[in-house]
Amino acid sequence: MSVIYNRVALIGLGLIAGSMAHAMRRAGLAGEIVGTARSAETRKVAAEIGLCDRIVETAAEAVEGADLVVLAVPVGAMEAVTEEIAPHLAPGATITDVGSVKRDVIAAIAPHLPEGVHFVPGHPLAGTEHSGPRSGFAELFDNRYVLLTPDPGTDAEAVAKLRAFWEGCGANVEEMDADHHDLVLAVTSHTPHLIAYTMVGVADDLRRVTDSEVIKYSAAGFRDFTRIAASDPTMWRDVFLSNKDATLEILGRFTEELFALQRAIRTGDGDHLHAYFTRTRAIRRGIIEAGQDTDAPDFGRTHAKPRKAEEAEG
Amino acid sequence: MSVIYNRVALIGLGLIAGSMAHAMRRAGLAGEIVGTARSAETRKVAAEIGLCDRIVETAAEAVEGADLVVLAVPVGAMEAVTEEIAPHLAPGATITDVGSVKRDVIAAIAPHLPEGVHFVPGHPLAGTEHSGPRSGFAELFDNRYVLLTPDPGTDAEAVAKLRAFWEGCGANVEEMDADHHDLVLAVTSHTPHLIAYTMVGVADDLRRVTDSEVIKYSAAGFRDFTRIAASDPTMWRDVFLSNKDATLEILGRFTEELFALQRAIRTGDGDHLHAYFTRTRAIRRGIIEAGQDTDAPDFGRTHAKPRKAEEAEG
Repeated sequence: MSVIYNRVALIGLGLIAGSMAHAMRRAGLAGEIVGTARSAETRKVAAEIGLCDRIVETAAEAVEGADLVVLAVPVGAMEAVTEEIAPHLAPGATITDVGSVKRDVIAAIAPHLPEGVHFVPGHPLAGTEHSGPRSGFAELFDNRYVLLTPDPGTDAEAVAKLRAFWEGCGANVEEMDADHHDLVLAVTSHTPHLIAYTMVGVADDLRRVTDSEVIKYSAAGFRDFTRIAASDPTMWRDVFLSNKDATLEILGRFTEELFALQRAIRTGDGDHLHAYFTRTRAIRRGIIEAGQDTDAPDFGRTHAKPRKAEEAEG
Repeated sequence: MSVIYNRVALIGLGLIAGSMAHAMRRAGLAGEIVGTARSAETRKVAAEIGLCDRIVETAAEAVEGADLVVLAVPVGAMEAVTEEIAPHLAPGATITDVGSVKRDVIAAIAPHLPEGVHFVPGHPLAGTEHSGPRSGFAELFDNRYVLLTPDPGTDAEAVAKLRAFWEGCGANVEEMDADHHDLVLAVTSHTPHLIAYTMVGVADDLRRVTDSEVIKYSAAGFRDFTRIAASDPTMWRDVFLSNKDATLEILGRFTEELFALQRAIRTGDGDHLHAYFTRTRAIRRGIIEAGQDTDAPDFGRTHAKPRKAEEAEG
C-alpha cells in the first residue's frame, strides 16, 4: 500500500483515532501522523506510547499543512474544534469526522469551513467498550463498515481518496445520505444502546434484587447489556442529543412492539410470542452469513476454562 | 470424582441435558446415563453420537431404577412428563428439573409426585444460542451458577447429593426461595431477552431501513441483541407465560425508566443522560471482577482476523 496523504492530523486521540494511527502505519497510508487532544494527560500518554509521529498541544497547530484532517472528538465538541482549526486549514485539504451522527455534525462543521477545503463526513462502524489513547489497535476496522455521507456537490477525487484511505485501514466503505445514515444507526446502534443503558439502570434500582445477585447471575442474558452500557457516557449523551428525531421515532416503534408482547404475556397468548420469537431468529442467521459475527456459541468467548458459553438459557 | 448416582435419567436431550451427559462423564458422576426425548429424530441423533449409555423410547422406561431423574424439557411440558413418569419412579429417587422458572414449574410437578421421592427444583444459569442433542459440551457449566429452590421440608441429604452432583459438573451451587429466583431471573434474563426480541422485531418491521442494512451494520450494537433473540422460541414462550408476574413487574419498571430517558432526550437534558450512563458503568466492572465475563474488548470475540472488536462506537 502506498502513501495516500502526506500529513494526517488526528484531532482527539481516543479509541478511533488511536486505531486509525495503528491502521495507517500497518498499511503505510500516511507520510506523517500528527496528533493532538484537549487533555494534557491524553497527549502525554499518546507521546509515551508513540501513537503518532508528532503530538502537538493545539488543534490549530495539528492541522498546519495536513492534507487530511480527522475530527475524532465527541459530537458535541465538533463545532468548537472546527471554529478553532478553520483559519489554519491548508487549501485543498480534506476534512472528515468519525461522529456517530451525521446530519447534526454536518450542520456543526460545514458552515465554518473555508472555500477550497473538501468536507467528507464519515462514520466507522467499529469500536469497543474501551476508550482512551491506549485502547486503539490496527485491526479495529478490518472487515467493518465505514459510512461516508458527502454532499452531492463534493469533489469526487477527495471522496475517492478518503474511500481508498479507509479501505487501506481494512474497512468496507459505503456512501449514503446523511439523514438515512442517522435513521439506520438509530435502529442498529443508538436505540439498542439506550435500551441497554435503561435495563442496567433498572437492575441497579431494584431494591429486592441486590446488585451482587445481578452481577453473579448476569450470564443469563443481562451481561451483554452491561457491556454495551459500559460505553463512553459523554459520547453517548451527545449521540442521543444530536440524533434526537430518529432515536425518538425508533423508540416509539420499540415501545409499541414491546407493549404488544407485554399484552401477549398478560393474556397468555403463546402463539403470538412463539411466532414473534421465530421470526427474529432469521435475522441472526443473516448476520452470521454476512460475516459480521461468529457462529461460535457465546461469540466464541473464552474464559478461564475453554469453550465457556452462556446466556440463551434463561 | 466418584460416582454420585448409579443411574441418571435425562428426560429431554437438548443443550442442557446433553451438556450434563458430557459433564457427568468428564467427572465420572453417574454409573449409567439413560436418555430419552419425545422426538424420534432427537433420539436417533443422540444414539448416533453416543450421548448416553442407553437411549429409550419413553420417559416411563427412562426413569426405571434411576436414582436421579432430570426433567430437561420446556417449562410448558413439565406437567405432562411428570404425570407420565410418576408411577414408574423408584422409591427414594431424586427428581430435579432445569427449568428457567421455578414457582410455576414446582406447581406443575410437585402435586404429581409419589411419597418417598425427593423433589429438588434446579436451574443452571448456562446456555448458548444453540439447541439440540449435538449442541452440548462438558464445559457449559464450568464456573456458572446453578440455583436450587427446594421446599424447606426437603430431605437434606437429597439436596446435598444434588449439590455435589452439580459441583462435580463444574458449577457453583446456591439455594434460594423459588419466588425470589423468579424475580432475580426476570431482571437478569427474562426481561433482557424480551427486550432483545422486541428490538430485533422492530428492525425487521421498519420499511425505510432494509433488513440488509440492519444486517450489514449490526456490529454497531444491535448484533448482541440478535444473538440473544436467536434463542429457542418454544423455551422462551414458556418462560414468559410461566413467569408472567415477575416479568410484567420488571417490564413496568423498564418502561418507566425508558420514558424518563426518552423525555431527557426530547428536552435535551444532557446532564440527566450523562449521569445515568455513568452510573451503569460500575455494574459492568463488578461483573468482570466477579469472573462472569472477560475484560477483553468485544468479549474477546475472534473473527477472520485477530483482535476484531466492535459495538461501543455508535
